[in-house]
Amino acid sequence: MRAAVRRATVLVRPKPGILDPQGEAVCSALGHLGFEVQDARIGKVIDLEVEAADEKAAKAEVERMCEQLLANPLIESYEVEILG
Amino acid sequence: MRAAVRRATVLVRPKPGILDPQGEAVCSALGHLGFEVQDARIGKVIDLEVEAADEKAAKAEVERMCEQLLANPLIESYEVEILG
Repeated sequence: MRAAVRRATVLVRPKPGILDPQGEAVCSALGHLGFEVQDARIGKVIDLEVEAADEKAAKAEVERMCEQLLANPLIESYEVEILG
Repeated sequence: MRAAVRRATVLVRPKPGILDPQGEAVCSALGHLGFEVQDARIGKVIDLEVEAADEKAAKAEVERMCEQLLANPLIESYEVEILG
Protein backbone atom coordinates (compact mmCIF):
# COMPACT_ATOMS: atom_id res chain seq x y z
CA MET A 1 0.00 0.00 0.00
CA ARG A 2 1.26 3.49 -0.76
CA ALA A 3 2.01 5.86 2.09
CA ALA A 4 -0.73 8.38 2.77
CA VAL A 5 -1.02 11.29 5.14
CA ARG A 6 -2.83 10.28 8.31
CA ARG A 7 -3.95 12.44 11.19
CA ALA A 8 -2.99 11.45 14.72
CA THR A 9 -3.80 12.92 18.10
CA VAL A 10 -1.45 12.35 21.01
CA LEU A 11 -2.32 13.09 24.63
CA VAL A 12 0.68 13.48 26.95
CA ARG A 13 -0.12 13.68 30.66
CA PRO A 14 1.93 13.85 33.85
CA LYS A 15 1.90 10.38 35.47
CA PRO A 16 -0.05 9.93 38.71
CA GLY A 17 2.06 11.03 41.67
CA ILE A 18 4.21 13.37 39.59
CA LEU A 19 4.02 16.97 40.78
CA ASP A 20 2.09 19.22 38.38
CA PRO A 21 2.58 22.84 39.46
CA GLN A 22 0.70 24.20 36.41
CA GLY A 23 -2.32 22.05 37.30
CA GLU A 24 -2.15 23.17 40.92
CA ALA A 25 -2.07 26.82 39.86
CA VAL A 26 -5.09 26.31 37.58
CA CYS A 27 -6.99 24.44 40.32
CA SER A 28 -6.35 27.26 42.76
CA ALA A 29 -7.23 29.99 40.23
CA LEU A 30 -10.52 28.23 39.38
CA GLY A 31 -11.31 28.10 43.11
CA HIS A 32 -10.71 31.85 43.42
CA LEU A 33 -13.13 32.39 40.52
CA GLY A 34 -15.81 30.53 42.50
CA PHE A 35 -15.71 27.15 40.73
CA GLU A 36 -15.92 23.91 42.72
CA VAL A 37 -12.86 22.05 41.48
CA GLN A 38 -11.23 19.17 43.37
CA ASP A 39 -8.28 18.58 41.08
CA ALA A 40 -6.72 19.76 37.83
CA ARG A 41 -3.87 18.12 35.89
CA ILE A 42 -2.40 19.61 32.75
CA GLY A 43 -0.72 17.92 29.84
CA LYS A 44 -0.28 18.40 26.12
CA VAL A 45 -2.39 17.54 23.11
CA ILE A 46 -0.37 17.13 19.90
CA ASP A 47 -2.10 16.90 16.52
CA LEU A 48 0.12 15.38 13.85
CA GLU A 49 -0.05 14.67 10.15
CA VAL A 50 2.21 11.72 9.42
CA GLU A 51 2.97 9.64 6.35
CA ALA A 52 2.30 5.96 6.83
CA ALA A 53 1.09 2.98 4.79
CA ASP A 54 -1.78 2.11 7.13
CA GLU A 55 -3.26 2.85 10.54
CA LYS A 56 -1.17 0.24 12.32
CA ALA A 57 2.08 1.60 10.85
CA ALA A 58 1.00 5.15 11.71
CA LYS A 59 0.33 4.20 15.31
CA ALA A 60 3.70 2.45 15.69
CA GLU A 61 5.47 5.46 14.12
CA VAL A 62 3.74 7.97 16.41
CA GLU A 63 4.53 5.82 19.45
CA ARG A 64 8.20 5.95 18.47
CA MET A 65 7.90 9.76 18.24
CA CYS A 66 6.48 9.78 21.77
CA GLU A 67 9.35 7.70 23.13
CA GLN A 68 11.99 9.80 21.38
CA LEU A 69 10.65 13.34 21.59
CA LEU A 70 7.03 14.04 22.43
CA ALA A 71 6.87 12.60 25.94
CA ASN A 72 9.28 11.98 28.77
CA PRO A 73 8.37 8.37 29.61
CA LEU A 74 9.84 8.72 33.11
CA ILE A 75 7.24 11.24 34.20
CA GLU A 76 4.64 11.34 31.45
CA SER A 77 2.21 8.83 29.96
CA TYR A 78 0.91 9.08 26.42
CA GLU A 79 -2.10 7.97 24.42
CA VAL A 80 -2.10 7.78 20.62
CA GLU A 81 -5.21 7.91 18.48
CA ILE A 82 -5.07 7.60 14.69
CA LEU A 83 -7.94 9.44 13.02
CA GLY A 84 -7.39 7.93 9.55
CA MET B 1 -29.92 15.45 42.69
CA ARG B 2 -26.93 15.93 45.00
CA ALA B 3 -23.72 17.29 43.62
CA ALA B 4 -21.13 14.63 42.88
CA VAL B 5 -17.56 14.77 41.70
CA ARG B 6 -17.34 14.28 37.96
CA ARG B 7 -14.28 13.92 35.79
CA ALA B 8 -13.91 16.15 32.75
CA THR B 9 -11.30 16.33 30.02
CA VAL B 10 -10.75 19.59 28.17
CA LEU B 11 -8.74 19.90 24.96
CA VAL B 12 -7.52 23.42 24.18
CA ARG B 13 -5.99 23.91 20.75
CA PRO B 14 -4.66 26.87 18.76
CA LYS B 15 -7.29 27.86 16.16
CA PRO B 16 -6.52 27.21 12.48
CA GLY B 17 -4.42 30.03 11.07
CA ILE B 18 -3.00 31.00 14.45
CA LEU B 19 0.79 30.73 14.57
CA ASP B 20 2.00 27.81 16.70
CA PRO B 21 5.77 28.12 17.16
CA GLN B 22 5.90 25.18 19.57
CA GLY B 23 4.21 22.96 16.99
CA GLU B 24 6.59 24.18 14.27
CA ALA B 25 9.59 23.39 16.47
CA VAL B 26 8.27 19.89 17.17
CA CYS B 27 7.53 19.30 13.48
CA SER B 28 11.05 20.34 12.54
CA ALA B 29 12.64 18.29 15.36
CA LEU B 30 10.69 15.19 14.29
CA GLY B 31 11.91 15.73 10.73
CA HIS B 32 15.52 15.88 11.94
CA LEU B 33 14.96 12.57 13.74
CA GLY B 34 13.94 11.01 10.41
CA PHE B 35 10.15 10.96 10.86
CA GLU B 36 7.86 11.89 7.95
CA VAL B 37 5.70 14.58 9.53
CA GLN B 38 3.72 17.12 7.52
CA ASP B 39 2.34 19.17 10.37
CA ALA B 40 2.26 19.37 14.16
CA ARG B 41 0.04 21.57 16.33
CA ILE B 42 0.30 21.68 20.10
CA GLY B 43 -2.34 22.48 22.66
CA LYS B 44 -3.23 21.57 26.21
CA VAL B 45 -5.16 18.71 27.77
CA ILE B 46 -6.69 19.56 31.14
CA ASP B 47 -8.16 16.83 33.36
CA LEU B 48 -10.54 18.22 35.97
CA GLU B 49 -12.56 16.89 38.87
CA VAL B 50 -15.57 19.17 39.33
CA GLU B 51 -18.63 19.12 41.57
CA ALA B 52 -21.90 19.17 39.66
CA ALA B 53 -25.41 17.77 39.96
CA ASP B 54 -25.38 15.99 36.61
CA GLU B 55 -23.45 15.67 33.36
CA LYS B 56 -25.21 18.58 31.71
CA ALA B 57 -24.47 20.91 34.61
CA ALA B 58 -20.86 19.71 34.69
CA LYS B 59 -20.42 20.42 30.98
CA ALA B 60 -21.89 23.94 31.30
CA GLU B 61 -19.65 24.65 34.31
CA VAL B 62 -16.49 23.46 32.55
CA GLU B 63 -17.39 25.52 29.46
CA ARG B 64 -17.59 28.58 31.71
CA MET B 65 -14.14 27.72 33.09
CA CYS B 66 -12.84 27.57 29.52
CA GLU B 67 -14.27 30.99 28.68
CA GLN B 68 -12.93 32.56 31.87
CA LEU B 69 -9.58 30.92 32.41
CA LEU B 70 -8.62 27.73 30.58
CA ALA B 71 -8.69 28.99 27.00
CA ASN B 72 -8.22 32.27 25.21
CA PRO B 73 -11.29 32.21 22.92
CA LEU B 74 -9.67 34.70 20.54
CA ILE B 75 -6.93 32.31 19.51
CA GLU B 76 -7.86 28.93 20.98
CA SER B 77 -10.74 26.51 20.54
CA TYR B 78 -11.79 24.05 23.22
CA GLU B 79 -13.59 20.72 23.47
CA VAL B 80 -15.16 19.48 26.71
CA GLU B 81 -15.84 15.83 27.47
CA ILE B 82 -17.51 14.73 30.71
CA LEU B 83 -16.41 11.23 31.73
CA GLY B 84 -19.07 10.76 34.42
